[in-house]
Amino acid sequence: MAAAATEARPRIVIVGGGFGGLAAAKALKSAEADITLVDRRNHHLFQPLLYQVATAALSPAQIAQPIRAVLRRQKNATVILDEVSGIDRAAKRLTLASGAALAFDTLIVATGATHAYFGHDGWASFAPGLKSLDDATAIRRRILDAFERAEVATDPAERDALLTFAIVGAGPTGVEMAGAIAELAHRTLAREFRHIDTMKTRIVLIEAGPRVLAAMPPALSEKGLKALQRLGVEVRLGRAVTDCSGKGVALGEDFIPCRTIIWAAGVQASRAAVWLGPETPRDRAGRVQVNADLSAPGSPDIFVIGDTAAATYGGGKLVPGVAPAAKQMGKDVARRILARLRGRAEPPPFAYKDQGNLATIGRGAGLVDLGWIKLSGQLGWWFWGLVHIFFLIDFRNRVSVSLDWLWSYLTYGRSARLMTEGDRRAQSAAPP
Amino acid sequence: MAAAATEARPRIVIVGGGFGGLAAAKALKSAEADITLVDRRNHHLFQPLLYQVATAALSPAQIAQPIRAVLRRQKNATVILDEVSGIDRAAKRLTLASGAALAFDTLIVATGATHAYFGHDGWASFAPGLKSLDDATAIRRRILDAFERAEVATDPAERDALLTFAIVGAGPTGVEMAGAIAELAHRTLAREFRHIDTMKTRIVLIEAGPRVLAAMPPALSEKGLKALQRLGVEVRLGRAVTDCSGKGVALGEDFIPCRTIIWAAGVQASRAAVWLGPETPRDRAGRVQVNADLSAPGSPDIFVIGDTAAATYGGGKLVPGVAPAAKQMGKDVARRILARLRGRAEPPPFAYKDQGNLATIGRGAGLVDLGWIKLSGQLGWWFWGLVHIFFLIDFRNRVSVSLDWLWSYLTYGRSARLMTEGDRRAQSAAPP
Repeated sequence: MAAAATEARPRIVIVGGGFGGLAAAKALKSAEADITLVDRRNHHLFQPLLYQVATAALSPAQIAQPIRAVLRRQKNATVILDEVSGIDRAAKRLTLASGAALAFDTLIVATGATHAYFGHDGWASFAPGLKSLDDATAIRRRILDAFERAEVATDPAERDALLTFAIVGAGPTGVEMAGAIAELAHRTLAREFRHIDTMKTRIVLIEAGPRVLAAMPPALSEKGLKALQRLGVEVRLGRAVTDCSGKGVALGEDFIPCRTIIWAAGVQASRAAVWLGPETPRDRAGRVQVNADLSAPGSPDIFVIGDTAAATYGGGKLVPGVAPAAKQMGKDVARRILARLRGRAEPPPFAYKDQGNLATIGRGAGLVDLGWIKLSGQLGWWFWGLVHIFFLIDFRNRVSVSLDWLWSYLTYGRSARLMTEGDRRAQSAAPP
Repeated sequence: MAAAATEARPRIVIVGGGFGGLAAAKALKSAEADITLVDRRNHHLFQPLLYQVATAALSPAQIAQPIRAVLRRQKNATVILDEVSGIDRAAKRLTLASGAALAFDTLIVATGATHAYFGHDGWASFAPGLKSLDDATAIRRRILDAFERAEVATDPAERDALLTFAIVGAGPTGVEMAGAIAELAHRTLAREFRHIDTMKTRIVLIEAGPRVLAAMPPALSEKGLKALQRLGVEVRLGRAVTDCSGKGVALGEDFIPCRTIIWAAGVQASRAAVWLGPETPRDRAGRVQVNADLSAPGSPDIFVIGDTAAATYGGGKLVPGVAPAAKQMGKDVARRILARLRGRAEPPPFAYKDQGNLATIGRGAGLVDLGWIKLSGQLGWWFWGLVHIFFLIDFRNRVSVSLDWLWSYLTYGRSARLMTEGDRRAQSAAPP
């Protein structure tokens, strides 16, 4: 009898253990259902601090948590480490990279986004982007290696190019990366080299639009620009990248010789729209244009949330691709599924609540826009730090990140200046 | 004048930033010489805790420190990230993988050791060893992945093989790995899986010799064996491995089906003896048989120290391959070089001071042999922990490792349960 009852429980499958997928899973805790969360990585990642791993301030484990550990006590949830290779909408079944199949009654797709090179995929190897922990440790290795190679370079032009770092895109990630590289070069590494002067490191932040941090009010953008310039970052606004190579970055006629380029410009949704088939409407970034209830057009039992969805609210405004939006969407579909399971009326259409925007540009310069209040400078910086520590998923990580930040604040040291994953030989195989 | 004086300064080159090389560099702080330390990795590694990275208890950055940062204030020292490809003894010059050459007046070779498979190099891909941070994160990924694959395995025999871990070699690394895997399986991961019972994980420790921890007195070996058995580790003594494959480990007629094998048996010196040429005497493990002053036979200005050297003391006893011995050798050659630079009498031959042996077998079971005192159980464990924290190179790491250990002690949690470096696709390319 018990076995038969178990068989009859509805099967909810969630693909992706990011902010959206994990919020949905947790909000379904009380569901009389079998929830399966599939992710190709074993960890939930706190992406807003990923740039700190890429710039050697934090270790990977400090911003990641095993999904399995997060859901340990939630008895209706099973976690599977696998990768989705396709969705059969008609049969209501996922196919997985391992060859297994996974049947569902309700599906939540929360597979996030990746980098977009606007049709120039060849730039990817020269200008890596920052989405996963592997991306972050690879960028960390490139940045640290550029200083090492500059130290032994004999050609002055090559040395200058090694000491030039170009960051493409002045959204939060680009701005935060530029500030962090400036502090790494001008503070942390100062006095450690004998043949180069890391104070002369050139950091160039390139933005096609007219201002940095475009999601912020213009006054805060202006403060961000000033803070970047105080750190010695060269900001090039209104300039589009026309080429990336092992030699440097081209901005039309202009050419910046550099050996390290970091891509923080475009995002492109994961392959969810492709899995859902050609009849699924999508926007230019590949995001599924979902219904007002976040379901995929034509499939009321398939929800698409987070960066994978092009959702609108309040009469056509696009929900932004930020962590709070993904969490809100996750909770919204969970409420919707619970209502259906319990035969209650479905909640009203998804309405995004803008909780504001935060960014930091190195030590003591934070930008906070909560709508009703705007902060900058030291106050903004402390607010930024407290919010990020608060939202870290695990108490241990909160203590350990606080400790490392305090340590860096006191000493300018960085806790994770490691070049790992392959030694020099592997390194030399990488471009350029 | 100043430039000419600088030119005339003797050039001391140290290859390797491990315990031996770094001790030598620091002890040469007052030398009127130009010291160049070359390492192919950017970090000094605290190898005694490497098994804790491999078993997800610590993060790589917690047991590593940039060599450059360690020597930041030592103005006579330059650090170069490069790999030695050869030594020209006659010309007194190193060739580097980058193509550069490095002239020396005095050379210290401290390049450590690697794994030895006793002529079965084909076993390496099935039974990885533990020497670098990359080794540790690769083993961590294999261990965590075995549980993930067991969770979705449909064939019971395959599931059992995935939940069997074989460790070859019962020296300190093998014993500590076995204890840590037992705790990971039986404590940390308990209740996180839905289809497997991690309590049934089988950990087999295989040792060709007659007892575990052969460097310890027999009574402590016996206590170590008991502690392992209490943790549920199967210990097979006096059994030599005859084959390793993707199917498991063979011990003559016996076969243990398993998907994870960890090699903690033989060590082999790095290529120093090869670089020094065929006339250099070496032992079976490839270690250079150095003179009583730790110089290479025939080259009074080339010293070989640490695991790369087969040094003897006190009338023919072999200096063991442990961190304190490498440090003592580093300091000894530094004193010797300083005496030569200052025209003083050379110190007496190197004499190793045995500072004792430590090992830990999971929570609350430490083994300490300091000669004049022997500890085991809780007391040995606390002593082990304090000593290891004390010897960590950086204050920040001491605080952070203490915090993580305290956290694990209270919760059985592990701070770094991450599978990184390549996602599932990369994974499936690895054997089997």
